[in-house]
Amino acid sequence: MSSYAYLGPEGTFTEAALLQVPGADKAERVPAVTVSSALDMVRTGRVTAAMVPIENSVEGGVSATLDSIANGDPLRIIREILVPVSFVLVGRPGLELADIRFVATHGHAWAQCRGWTEQNIPSAEYIPASSTAAAAHTLLDDGAGHDAAICSPLVANRLGLRILAEHIGDVADAVTRFILVSRPDTLPARTGADKTTLVIPLPEDHPGALMEILDQFAARGVNLSRIESRPTGLFLGDYFFSIDADGHVADARVADALQGLHRISPGLRFLGSYARADRREYDVARHTSDQAFQSAQEWVDSLLRSPTVDPESIG
Amino acid sequence: MSSYAYLGPEGTFTEAALLQVPGADKAERVPAVTVSSALDMVRTGRVTAAMVPIENSVEGGVSATLDSIANGDPLRIIREILVPVSFVLVGRPGLELADIRFVATHGHAWAQCRGWTEQNIPSAEYIPASSTAAAAHTLLDDGAGHDAAICSPLVANRLGLRILAEHIGDVADAVTRFILVSRPDTLPARTGADKTTLVIPLPEDHPGALMEILDQFAARGVNLSRIESRPTGLFLGDYFFSIDADGHVADARVADALQGLHRISPGLRFLGSYARADRREYDVARHTSDQAFQSAQEWVDSLLRSPTVDPESIG
Amino acid sequence: MSSYAYLGPEGTFTEAALLQVPGADKAERVPAVTVSSALDMVRTGRVTAAMVPIENSVEGGVSATLDSIANGDPLRIIREILVPVSFVLVGRPGLELADIRFVATHGHAWAQCRGWTEQNIPSAEYIPASSTAAAAHTLLDDGAGHDAAICSPLVANRLGLRILAEHIGDVADAVTRFILVSRPDTLPARTGADKTTLVIPLPEDHPGALMEILDQFAARGVNLSRIESRPTGLFLGDYFFSIDADGHVADARVADALQGLHRISPGLRFLGSYARADRREYDVARHTSDQAFQSAQEWVDSLLRSPTVDPESIG
Amino acid sequence: MSSYAYLGPEGTFTEAALLQVPGADKAERVPAVTVSSALDMVRTGRVTAAMVPIENSVEGGVSATLDSIANGDPLRIIREILVPVSFVLVGRPGLELADIRFVATHGHAWAQCRGWTEQNIPSAEYIPASSTAAAAHTLLDDGAGHDAAICSPLVANRLGLRILAEHIGDVADAVTRFILVSRPDTLPARTGADKTTLVIPLPEDHPGALMEILDQFAARGVNLSRIESRPTGLFLGDYFFSIDADGHVADARVADALQGLHRISPGLRFLGSYARADRREYDVARHTSDQAFQSAQEWVDSLLRSPTVDPESIG
Repeated sequence: MSSYAYLGPEGTFTEAALLQVPGADKAERVPAVTVSSALDMVRTGRVTAAMVPIENSVEGGVSATLDSIANGDPLRIIREILVPVSFVLVGRPGLELADIRFVATHGHAWAQCRGWTEQNIPSAEYIPASSTAAAAHTLLDDGAGHDAAICSPLVANRLGLRILAEHIGDVADAVTRFILVSRPDTLPARTGADKTTLVIPLPEDHPGALMEILDQFAARGVNLSRIESRPTGLFLGDYFFSIDADGHVADARVADALQGLHRISPGLRFLGSYARADRREYDVARHTSDQAFQSAQEWVDSLLRSPTVDPESIG
Repeated sequence: MSSYAYLGPEGTFTEAALLQVPGADKAERVPAVTVSSALDMVRTGRVTAAMVPIENSVEGGVSATLDSIANGDPLRIIREILVPVSFVLVGRPGLELADIRFVATHGHAWAQCRGWTEQNIPSAEYIPASSTAAAAHTLLDDGAGHDAAICSPLVANRLGLRILAEHIGDVADAVTRFILVSRPDTLPARTGADKTTLVIPLPEDHPGALMEILDQFAARGVNLSRIESRPTGLFLGDYFFSIDADGHVADARVADALQGLHRISPGLRFLGSYARADRREYDVARHTSDQAFQSAQEWVDSLLRSPTVDPESIG
Repeated sequence: MSSYAYLGPEGTFTEAALLQVPGADKAERVPAVTVSSALDMVRTGRVTAAMVPIENSVEGGVSATLDSIANGDPLRIIREILVPVSFVLVGRPGLELADIRFVATHGHAWAQCRGWTEQNIPSAEYIPASSTAAAAHTLLDDGAGHDAAICSPLVANRLGLRILAEHIGDVADAVTRFILVSRPDTLPARTGADKTTLVIPLPEDHPGALMEILDQFAARGVNLSRIESRPTGLFLGDYFFSIDADGHVADARVADALQGLHRISPGLRFLGSYARADRREYDVARHTSDQAFQSAQEWVDSLLRSPTVDPESIG
Repeated sequence: MSSYAYLGPEGTFTEAALLQVPGADKAERVPAVTVSSALDMVRTGRVTAAMVPIENSVEGGVSATLDSIANGDPLRIIREILVPVSFVLVGRPGLELADIRFVATHGHAWAQCRGWTEQNIPSAEYIPASSTAAAAHTLLDDGAGHDAAICSPLVANRLGLRILAEHIGDVADAVTRFILVSRPDTLPARTGADKTTLVIPLPEDHPGALMEILDQFAARGVNLSRIESRPTGLFLGDYFFSIDADGHVADARVADALQGLHRISPGLRFLGSYARADRREYDVARHTSDQAFQSAQEWVDSLLRSPTVDPESIG
């Protein structure tokens, strides 16, 4: 039976992501206060896997996620989940829109709903909360300083809160991306629409060093869908790169790029190959297909099978 | 007289960064609830400039900062500030370490002090707050659920809070980086140890497109100190890059790189050239010096001064 | 009145190339024994210009041409000429094909007609000559060791030699390329289908040094139509590159590439921009058009026009 | 017992190169009229191997060599020979320097001795010959139009010709390079100072296509010592590249580069890996050593050994 940690509290968009995982609705789900504590529960074996935000998240945690995965005992990303970011406005019983004076939510969510709030509740004041779910949970507390909250539909429904308005985010189709992280003992099979995540220390800091890294991908026709430099934390000026590349380590071109990367930056970390949540396939140029790699290997092997002669004796 | 917005509330590390700016201690300082509202105060003319976190921040806001600067009316970074991240533990009057039951702080700060807390206050429970300063401000409230807070020395001193422990962060020399942002009407003069920040939309999404962008820097010997891909928000798979490069637009090699970038991605944004906070100088290869650029320009100009003849008449 | 040197003797394919130049048929034409002596006649002012082979020549001289232009007083290529290489077999009066015993010609010409000779005059023996024209000129000498020659139609007609067979070359559409070289005092105007020839010393000998040179072209979308490394002659392992690039120095992308080359290899030589003999136009990507260069220049200029402020006073 | 073809006639510098091969002095040596006929004797089995000039040759033949090897049945270079180019002036018996009126030699040799001839025999006239050896051989013929010749010491000594002056070349240390070519059935063993020769068709003609080829070398730290574009002869604008790279196909970095080349240009030809004549060793960066390749291979293999799980079942 699996058990899962996630960035809590209950009702966050991260829990919504977790609930997309088959069986997670019936499994143990442990809310964690921070991304790194969620990941540590995986490392220590307390849970099977953890769901954490990786990009563009409403509740932050992205840089923290990158740094937490890059350091400490190895982990592996085994699944990617996209969650539509849909905000609702919830209020105390009997409250009307016109009566709202204090709205609690996470700062990012407040920023993403500002168009709607300025038009519909222009005089409401913002009360910061540590997450959208926390703002919802405390709405009914006696001592709460707010009379409304902006949160996910999940938490609103679960707590039976009164929904005053739906879809109040300024960007209609916003989605945010989460990853499911386990210990590094399995590898999801190749699906043909995969993603590989790597952490690559910059081997030397000179103009062109990053180019050498990226060339390992470009030279094999491997597209990148994300790149981020992060200070190593040791001292300023020392970097690592967090990269998502199209393809699976079982694709010859990805395996070859990984070998190239290992040669120039042997301290790199493989964080996993896993199915893309959007199932979007990518073009593979003929010269970077598995077939092209196999033909090339066979050709060079055939050259090396020639009988060898001593150079001094040639004549 | 200048006035400044900053990511508040009062006493955040961001305010500590702002107080490093000459005259800011006597100027009007307006706390903002979010990074984007701080920047909007600049755009609307409500304040002269805004201080916001850009990297590795204790209180987050980094991705939000990148996205807020990349969109909307143009802004310009005019100064970079580094702040040592030093945490203190503050408690209610009379409280001893052994008595602490609930510690409030921002999630990132909690994560960064975990080594100390596990050793010194292992049974204390974490209460999330929207910022370290907010945790400090509410410590003395009657309804506060916490009896201690982790915050900056600035807010502890300002509120006269009782400091139970200092320097409790796990990383001794942690610093975090902030930027001062104004409207785009001036340019800080070149100092010889400068940084240029750009936002560059990916012109096409194919393997090698990022290489073409980075090559504009590498080919001119311009080192990058930060790179981050960010989804444009329009649809998944569309990216822009946020980049910090060594040097100033008044350096010939940087100006030349910017021209190359403008040709392949005309929608790029110049977010400013400004002195590096760490004053670290960078090597400039002889072939990328201003002198080399000028000689090359003169040489080509001399070729183009030759009298022109009609190709049909040659003979 | 112009005068011309060419790689002789009279009747070579090089003279045929020269006769394509308007007015050359009525001008003084001076045969030279070697390519370098032809070029020296230009350098000393003895002639206005010289026609010499540059590629794929029947009578060799290509490497010699490259080396002679790369060293010594500067020269400039002002025109390119293509000559169809059509061979004829000429014989002494009264001679029939079946009677031919000794055929004189230049070694390259003999190689290029081997298919025809093996089929039609299999028992004929080859007599090497220093040029196809020399073989023709000496055919009627008493002491000549040969009774037939392979040469150009030009010399056959001019000497009134009896043509036994035409179009005997193995490759039907073979052409060879010649250049007209003058002193460096004019520049042929841009036609839109031009070529630029350069001599570029390798600045340093390490893997990637050649890439740095070629990147100056690729980064500006400039295609190469010829590249050749040549030892400098000073010692083995020291190279220069002889390169033909699409475009004219008056094209912004070519001028910019030349500046980049000058910075990394200031000893490069510009050997001219001139109309392509085949008039083939080339695609210019939008981001490398003169317009794109001008827009980029204007954009950076506008950035540099911002009023400058003292970094120390910012606040 | 081996037999050899070479670019004749007897006494050329090419024969001097052949005589450096162990045992060649006692083996059958067959002079060939052209490079391609020498190579064809190898292809047909008439001889074991052929010695032909490949670079910088006094008697030309370089482009012819490249083209002849690139087409037709496969051949393999098994040895490289350097020959110091030392010219002597030989004359008819009794002739003094001051009496010389006509000097025969190959055009390239005449060019390379011009400094000496202008100073010492300024009034002598040049008679072109098809090779330096041919000029020497015919010197004693009754019908010869010349009374002196410039040739190699080899032919002068062999024919017992009277040497009027030695070391008359303008460049003191000139050397020229020759290759020994066999059928493709053996591979000289790796020596640590090797060279690999390739013929690579340009897969597509666009700016950057050549870069993609060269990047296969640069990305593996493989230096090039020669590159030459050659028209394929099919039509103008279609090219192949003739390349010499440092290293042996048995070096992991070279084998890997060859695989990369095969993927983008599957029609490439491997012309051999063989000991450098100058024995000059090259630096191998740590990240391109055989050890680095092996470690990288093992690392990726270890990733692929993880048990695979069905992506649909993850959770």
